[in-house]
Amino acid sequence: MNKFSSALASVTDQQSAALADLIEFSAIPSISTLSERNPDTRRAAQWVANKLSGIGLEHAQLFETDRHPVVYADWLHAPGKPTILLYGHYDVQPADPLAEWNTEPFTPTRRGDNLYARGASDMKAQVLALIRSVGALLAADSLTINVKFLIEGEEEIGSPSLGKFIPAHASLLQCDYMVSADSGILKPDVPSIVYGLRGLAYFELLVQGPQTDLHSGMFGGVVHNPANVLAHLIGGMHDTNGRILLPGFYDDVVTLDPDERKALAATPYTDADVLAAAGNPPQLFGERGFTSAERIGARPTLDVNGMLSGFTGEGSKTVLPAKAMAKISTRLVPNQDPAKVELQLRAYLQQHAPPSVRWTLKTLAGAHPAVVDRTSPGMQAAARAMQTVFGTAPVMVREGGSVPIVGLMRTHLNIDTVMLGFALHDDGIHGPNEKQHIPTYWRGIETFVHFFSNASQ
Amino acid sequence: MNKFSSALASVTDQQSAALADLIEFSAIPSISTLSERNPDTRRAAQWVANKLSGIGLEHAQLFETDRHPVVYADWLHAPGKPTILLYGHYDVQPADPLAEWNTEPFTPTRRGDNLYARGASDMKAQVLALIRSVGALLAADSLTINVKFLIEGEEEIGSPSLGKFIPAHASLLQCDYMVSADSGILKPDVPSIVYGLRGLAYFELLVQGPQTDLHSGMFGGVVHNPANVLAHLIGGMHDTNGRILLPGFYDDVVTLDPDERKALAATPYTDADVLAAAGNPPQLFGERGFTSAERIGARPTLDVNGMLSGFTGEGSKTVLPAKAMAKISTRLVPNQDPAKVELQLRAYLQQHAPPSVRWTLKTLAGAHPAVVDRTSPGMQAAARAMQTVFGTAPVMVREGGSVPIVGLMRTHLNIDTVMLGFALHDDGIHGPNEKQHIPTYWRGIETFVHFFSNASQ
Repeated sequence: MNKFSSALASVTDQQSAALADLIEFSAIPSISTLSERNPDTRRAAQWVANKLSGIGLEHAQLFETDRHPVVYADWLHAPGKPTILLYGHYDVQPADPLAEWNTEPFTPTRRGDNLYARGASDMKAQVLALIRSVGALLAADSLTINVKFLIEGEEEIGSPSLGKFIPAHASLLQCDYMVSADSGILKPDVPSIVYGLRGLAYFELLVQGPQTDLHSGMFGGVVHNPANVLAHLIGGMHDTNGRILLPGFYDDVVTLDPDERKALAATPYTDADVLAAAGNPPQLFGERGFTSAERIGARPTLDVNGMLSGFTGEGSKTVLPAKAMAKISTRLVPNQDPAKVELQLRAYLQQHAPPSVRWTLKTLAGAHPAVVDRTSPGMQAAARAMQTVFGTAPVMVREGGSVPIVGLMRTHLNIDTVMLGFALHDDGIHGPNEKQHIPTYWRGIETFVHFFSNASQ
Repeated sequence: MNKFSSALASVTDQQSAALADLIEFSAIPSISTLSERNPDTRRAAQWVANKLSGIGLEHAQLFETDRHPVVYADWLHAPGKPTILLYGHYDVQPADPLAEWNTEPFTPTRRGDNLYARGASDMKAQVLALIRSVGALLAADSLTINVKFLIEGEEEIGSPSLGKFIPAHASLLQCDYMVSADSGILKPDVPSIVYGLRGLAYFELLVQGPQTDLHSGMFGGVVHNPANVLAHLIGGMHDTNGRILLPGFYDDVVTLDPDERKALAATPYTDADVLAAAGNPPQLFGERGFTSAERIGARPTLDVNGMLSGFTGEGSKTVLPAKAMAKISTRLVPNQDPAKVELQLRAYLQQHAPPSVRWTLKTLAGAHPAVVDRTSPGMQAAARAMQTVFGTAPVMVREGGSVPIVGLMRTHLNIDTVMLGFALHDDGIHGPNEKQHIPTYWRGIETFVHFFSNASQ
């Protein structure tokens, strides 16, 4: 048995240790958006740093930022070979609505082939797949490339610190290309590689009317109701064909060329698959004139992520609320710019908000969209690794999510990214009962082992 | 000093006891809409019953209902004289938003001329003004009419039990007319009598899309967002002139005649007064073509009372919510019917809700609008009492609030109501920092003493 074969065998031998790692990591409630969770979030960073030095990486350390630390480590002993920056994040989304979880979100629980926990799929299993595959190769003395790890703690809040961190550590982060494991495949037996990600512009809109809540009988009809105004403003952001009405919103959207439309049409992720993965809403709905694959990967969206006003308890309270709040985010496609979208939203509000209320808009996160070269050496290495492990060539897809670092690495360091991760569409990421499909976790580790081997050639 | 003068003197002598009563009563968190407060709500009912028998009324008792008991008591020893049913409620609105209170809502706190507590003005002070005035007359042996008290515990949730209770106790409630103290005056020195009340139809609308919250990147653009749909539905319920767009909504609205418009135009409650009482929103807004007095008293409204969807915590969560909820209520004017308005809202939703979501509508409360005869003997007695105490004749106004019993007594027992109460526009009822203006409390008690004396003539 050569060194590489022994590395490959060892990942199968050590599955129970890999699962124990995932359970331990997923039990840490590293919710980056909640400041009350800051100690847990730091604990997750430290946990990752310990793992990285544990497998033999060097320079494992935490870089402080304004919010949550960036974890870095490297192994640079393959002179003349490519250097790959491996990206992941240790933070997770909030777990609410808590009442809808079947088991505690931070008590990882196995049922059948799945491990249920917030963050298991997005993306603690993916981070561990990177760590364990590199660890297996190092242990077998068969790592034939140079690797740098960058595992951040703010992806779920839009990576606000990376915009400063990346240019400030340009030489530390130098590499031939980056691999982001914050990605997924179409189905357990349908491997795929994401070559396009949408951008993000996330806002909080507050409409304020009277200073305090008022009696809706005494003041209804003379004082403009901020909740009605907010609803009217949001309601006017789409037409009935699903098109977004912010002024100039589509100006920078790149038109899909016929070849790409044809390729996307061949994606083996049907409307029936989408409906099932979405938990069967009555029917799908999206921008008229586009297929589901196009709507997810190549067309922008505007979604309310949260909305709150007035009395939301049991029964009735006849109150005219003082204020109404909505969290609103847009997903962007090339060549939209989150900063420009903010201006478009402000222009819309200036045009449509009545003078009877005050409004404020706060930008909470932004990320550029990205489409990467499907023919680069890194992409070829990834495709070959998937072909080996899954027995079939990966489908090339454009995904609807956003990973801010992909745009930032391109902008600041001119570095391209290969998106290679193993989340599934029905993993419930960001929702209740998130889970990691355990057989897919094994395949992810195996695929990375092959990928690193391919990448050195 | 005759008996009446001694009754009148005694209410002044006993102001500190009257204030102690108000503090004790207001300390009971009798929030009818919250089932967790049921023991407190019952305690308030018992407190009222004890007070009623304490002043010498007979048959003081609690009648059980499906929710909160009705308190009844009477004194029927003035043969040949009118019998007046005195109405009030011992329940209060929820106290939230709690963070906006300067002192605890159920720790009544005096600052200057005001006593701050949830329910102090709406309407524990008004109930006590009835009880203490009748008590003073009884103690001085000078009550010259027959009285029945009906103090309910469900007014703030729309009096759902009275629709059954009133017809079931028709003979018990027989009277010449009713006096509702759930009412107010324009300003401390501007007495007024309400002769019109709006009706109410209160709904909870739930829009449901996917089964659980989804990742807004993976599903945004293909799954219709229930919060966007809800906003669109609510946004479409008004045009930009403030007119309500439910089909047929204005069909039954009685057009104001020129005389009444003239009378309402003379109401000494200016737009500047409304702005100040509302805590100075940037400007007023209402249905085009109508004055504030008309918009409050004589035109229907549709207000969102509460709205909730998705993630409303700190920061950002990129989620496509599974559902979105709004509490929506309409205030109605003659001859609108809450049951018909429900059908109009359902018709609107059937027309406008897209097939990509499910929706359900729950009716939480309903009340008929009411306009009463301004020249009845009871109204005359009330007007003379106000003239005596305030030194000026009361203004006749149509109010924006709703008191379900007024319509129910008319419908079931053909009994008219005199609305005589002393809440002020800036008392903050239903909002944070509700307060009772203490000098107005004294004047209320005094006015009732004169009223009962006038009413026997």
